[in-house]
Amino acid sequence: MTGDRDLRIAVLGVGVMGADHVARITSRISGARVGVVNDYITEKAEQIASEIDGCRAVADPLEAIADPQVDAVLLATPGAVHENQLLACLEHRKPVLCEKPLTTEVSTSLDIVRQESQLDRPLIQVGFMRRFDDEYMHLKALLDGGELGRPLLMHCVHRNASVPSYFDSSLIVKDSLVHEVDVTRFLFDEEITSVQILKPSSNPAAPEGVIDPQIAVLRTASGKHVDVELFVTTGVAYEVRTEVVGEKGSAIIGLDIGMIRKSAPATWGGQVTPGFRERFGRAYDTQIQRWVDAVRAGVNVDGPTAWDGYAAAAVCAAGVESLHTGLPVDVQLAARP
Amino acid sequence: MTGDRDLRIAVLGVGVMGADHVARITSRISGARVGVVNDYITEKAEQIASEIDGCRAVADPLEAIADPQVDAVLLATPGAVHENQLLACLEHRKPVLCEKPLTTEVSTSLDIVRQESQLDRPLIQVGFMRRFDDEYMHLKALLDGGELGRPLLMHCVHRNASVPSYFDSSLIVKDSLVHEVDVTRFLFDEEITSVQILKPSSNPAAPEGVIDPQIAVLRTASGKHVDVELFVTTGVAYEVRTEVVGEKGSAIIGLDIGMIRKSAPATWGGQVTPGFRERFGRAYDTQIQRWVDAVRAGVNVDGPTAWDGYAAAAVCAAGVESLHTGLPVDVQLAARP
Amino acid sequence: MTGDRDLRIAVLGVGVMGADHVARITSRISGARVGVVNDYITEKAEQIASEIDGCRAVADPLEAIADPQVDAVLLATPGAVHENQLLACLEHRKPVLCEKPLTTEVSTSLDIVRQESQLDRPLIQVGFMRRFDDEYMHLKALLDGGELGRPLLMHCVHRNASVPSYFDSSLIVKDSLVHEVDVTRFLFDEEITSVQILKPSSNPAAPEGVIDPQIAVLRTASGKHVDVELFVTTGVAYEVRTEVVGEKGSAIIGLDIGMIRKSAPATWGGQVTPGFRERFGRAYDTQIQRWVDAVRAGVNVDGPTAWDGYAAAAVCAAGVESLHTGLPVDVQLAARP
Amino acid sequence: MTGDRDLRIAVLGVGVMGADHVARITSRISGARVGVVNDYITEKAEQIASEIDGCRAVADPLEAIADPQVDAVLLATPGAVHENQLLACLEHRKPVLCEKPLTTEVSTSLDIVRQESQLDRPLIQVGFMRRFDDEYMHLKALLDGGELGRPLLMHCVHRNASVPSYFDSSLIVKDSLVHEVDVTRFLFDEEITSVQILKPSSNPAAPEGVIDPQIAVLRTASGKHVDVELFVTTGVAYEVRTEVVGEKGSAIIGLDIGMIRKSAPATWGGQVTPGFRERFGRAYDTQIQRWVDAVRAGVNVDGPTAWDGYAAAAVCAAGVESLHTGLPVDVQLAARP
Repeated sequence: MTGDRDLRIAVLGVGVMGADHVARITSRISGARVGVVNDYITEKAEQIASEIDGCRAVADPLEAIADPQVDAVLLATPGAVHENQLLACLEHRKPVLCEKPLTTEVSTSLDIVRQESQLDRPLIQVGFMRRFDDEYMHLKALLDGGELGRPLLMHCVHRNASVPSYFDSSLIVKDSLVHEVDVTRFLFDEEITSVQILKPSSNPAAPEGVIDPQIAVLRTASGKHVDVELFVTTGVAYEVRTEVVGEKGSAIIGLDIGMIRKSAPATWGGQVTPGFRERFGRAYDTQIQRWVDAVRAGVNVDGPTAWDGYAAAAVCAAGVESLHTGLPVDVQLAARP
Repeated sequence: MTGDRDLRIAVLGVGVMGADHVARITSRISGARVGVVNDYITEKAEQIASEIDGCRAVADPLEAIADPQVDAVLLATPGAVHENQLLACLEHRKPVLCEKPLTTEVSTSLDIVRQESQLDRPLIQVGFMRRFDDEYMHLKALLDGGELGRPLLMHCVHRNASVPSYFDSSLIVKDSLVHEVDVTRFLFDEEITSVQILKPSSNPAAPEGVIDPQIAVLRTASGKHVDVELFVTTGVAYEVRTEVVGEKGSAIIGLDIGMIRKSAPATWGGQVTPGFRERFGRAYDTQIQRWVDAVRAGVNVDGPTAWDGYAAAAVCAAGVESLHTGLPVDVQLAARP
Repeated sequence: MTGDRDLRIAVLGVGVMGADHVARITSRISGARVGVVNDYITEKAEQIASEIDGCRAVADPLEAIADPQVDAVLLATPGAVHENQLLACLEHRKPVLCEKPLTTEVSTSLDIVRQESQLDRPLIQVGFMRRFDDEYMHLKALLDGGELGRPLLMHCVHRNASVPSYFDSSLIVKDSLVHEVDVTRFLFDEEITSVQILKPSSNPAAPEGVIDPQIAVLRTASGKHVDVELFVTTGVAYEVRTEVVGEKGSAIIGLDIGMIRKSAPATWGGQVTPGFRERFGRAYDTQIQRWVDAVRAGVNVDGPTAWDGYAAAAVCAAGVESLHTGLPVDVQLAARP
Repeated sequence: MTGDRDLRIAVLGVGVMGADHVARITSRISGARVGVVNDYITEKAEQIASEIDGCRAVADPLEAIADPQVDAVLLATPGAVHENQLLACLEHRKPVLCEKPLTTEVSTSLDIVRQESQLDRPLIQVGFMRRFDDEYMHLKALLDGGELGRPLLMHCVHRNASVPSYFDSSLIVKDSLVHEVDVTRFLFDEEITSVQILKPSSNPAAPEGVIDPQIAVLRTASGKHVDVELFVTTGVAYEVRTEVVGEKGSAIIGLDIGMIRKSAPATWGGQVTPGFRERFGRAYDTQIQRWVDAVRAGVNVDGPTAWDGYAAAAVCAAGVESLHTGLPVDVQLAARP
């Protein structure tokens, strides 16, 4: 596509995840817009399309994929229909970001991989979003930098306060563990060769017949050990924690208190923030996005006003005076217009 | 302006901050683009303009402001020229986001406030970006929610590893303290009525004649006390910390280990993450922005591939099998195409 | 005394602190036992004596001091009677561990110091137990090791959930700030030359007429700055925190991060420290064990000296004066004998 | 024994641990003294005896046990001689604090339990000192208080920087895992019924032929799951961490967050714990003080019993078997006498 206009995306499936993606592309993503939405509940798609400039609802997902006005596809449909929709994307050469799972069967996933491999470039990206999380990216960089030596072990915790009523024991594996599976492959850059699920006595709060918690034990090609606590009815909160233990040290993320690193010589801690751009970079993004939105909405300001700038100047001027005298200096503000 | 096309912004001043803002608007902000850049070093502006579709350099900042193709202005010029440029924005009714300071003199800042107050709506926003930082927003929400009772005290720390050679004792007040001045006014919703600068013995590493560290003591209209350590030659790192002490508890941000909250009944801690959208919302943003960029660039994928989706499916299928048997299950991957 | 039998200690005053000390010496301190107890409430002393093998109650504190069966004295009586009792200890050459304050007046504290200085070895140790706390010892070692460079600043927080009904504004200085006064002198190895008490608007939960919180600003001989938040009616818990900022780095103790607990409703955290006995109980043990060992070894003192008690009294007296005037008050110490 | 004089203890074995215990009893424990020391290196025992008032060296450990001047015995000899020495203690009715292991064989441990059970009161306490550590006591109290609901899972980490050259794969089970075995039994109040040792690829820094790290998976009678990372050649520091996950929440101890230090080059953190003496030194003090008090009170035991020693031995024996087979091994305990 030409690089100088916005990418026109078709979002297929506008349930919770899909609707989030529509809002994201419309309000926070630069260089793209939602051109088409589709859902098996037609009214929902039409409602969403009506709220976005230049967006229309298309009833048939395959028609949406084939539409020449669509540059790329975001698949947030149920896993069971992914196979057909991915094949259509490949046929029509449409780049596609596919929410996990790729497909619901191992064999069809492999089919998709093989079909795509015959093209001259890949078209499919899978939505394992942890790879884009600051903490995981930080942990990956730490491992790649070699500070911890070669990784040997990983301990993971994956807890939900509760899960929807349709969750069963297998979904804990396919829908929860799948993230740690990808984290393992991402951090260690190797395949998993064995998996075992241990079943402790269950939580009384788990639905009848659901085995929860579960402990998954993974082993990689080179013999690395990974254990994962999967516990989806804790009643507390969402908690995702990962600790990698290497030959020279260990690092843990997800404690809700930042990353704590241990390595020789005998210290623990994290990285200090090198400068304001690292500390406040996202705040700048947020500030400008909200200002842009305010100007487009005609209110012009969504943040500190000129009065705030004046008041700060007055206080600082008094501060500079106190710097010279050493005494407290009163701040006299003009009446606010 | 009409809401259905991108906001065309003129960025005035493309030094470090201004160039950051150009990159931000171009790559991470939805609904806006940089239409005009200006700098007193003409070549720099022309270089930047040449790299952005539909952007041109304009030599005269006042001409850039007046330009009918410019919807809004971002002022990243030196403070000394802000007054003229802001007056031009007011005259031409251009919304403007002005990097601190508003102007370099208290009297001219007040002039600007008064001029703007005669319009039917505000046009000027000042770049105190901490108000958009997650931790400060979180702290503000905690205070507004009343959990800590009415605030009584605030302790702040503002440390830089080092500062540019032109920094002097007054700049520590006007350029560093100014942020805590705005934080005080933002968090407490009241004006500062007195300020005192204490001068401990100086750091040997501070430049000759510069008083560093300094301790600022602020007092607000209702008698709240704020102390600020300003120390800009620590040699360590950037560190901004704020603790508010209220009638019923205290909260501290900026420890590099998350927010730690203390309140009755006798507990300390922070908030746990309620769900994956809160935990990984930004990761989703990043994922989709990078995918959009990859598709626009024609590489289509910048993240997990279809193979990654297949491999995860294969491991999870083995996991489901182990869930039934309780035994380790080997994972057999096909040859990678 | 001969080193091969237990030190026989007279404990004068068996209120909360004194009774704690009796239990400590009887059950956790090696090489000492309580031989005599005294209290102005005779029944209390007799009750305690009856529970300890070989211990008797003595009605007159001066008789207890003079008793040849008493090797050393632990003074946990009210400050107002310390002067007489310390003089008796000096007269009878009895080593004495004196709970703060040394005496209630600066002039009498100086008298005690001068009287003691005429002996061939010291007899008086003052109960500033923070010097024996693991965290403070760790911080002292860090400073002495030079890793942080020369200290420049110190920020202290001293919070109580509540205080007894007799507490008034001056006692916050004399009974709470006195610890940070000694910590400053201990960590920095120099005298305090100026003190100022700032008075923010008060906590509504503070008793009528009591100024709480207070901010104390100390300055040392070499120009180091120390600020102390004193807040004794927080309603939350006991919290003592100290951060030292040096030329090359900073260190903070007292953040209360131990066991981390997560439970519904959606919180994480640990337990805050309910009071000074939980926070500093082990420091008291260590203090008394080291004092017992010093007395048995004939050196009598292994901790804060009478001079340390006098210096603290002088700084606090200046603090009380500043509490009234609001201005910085210089501290004038006598020449050290 | 009569309660009004110090307990006279014979310390058998004065290697690192035994010598620590001698110093502890002599200088920090109230109500006891070391009357006799013994070691197979006679000179070492004589040297130590010569430094303590009223202490003598005895060449034969059985003679030391039988000595009427000895009230109680502390066994810090190699495990291989424990059986004989414990039998002698039982014969002479001497209370004994026995460093782990109780004996080196499961069968002899059970013999000891049965012999002791024929007496009218227990005589043997086993040195599982973690039960006396503040953090473990705090965690036990949290569990017993019910705040976390019934425990379901436990994750443990047990790391050493390095181990002596005689350490082999089995000793990692018998000498390191044994602590988590006792912690499991202590916190959960139930027996362990199965143990499996998993063998990830080994650390290159581990001695030739030693399997390190190991992952132990324990299962209790009621189906609770415990996993333990055992890694004794990390090169970093000593690290013992325990997280319990219950029906209503979780709690973690051992994260090492104390003093937080920031200094160049750009790091923050605290000190990691160099070894078990720093981590558990106070627990040893508490253990011995409580044992001394129990013996003086005539109840002899206030801590882990001979049964606890036997049960730990049985679990570790199963662990060693799993180390060879790689399969889960059931633990079969004899009926409790």
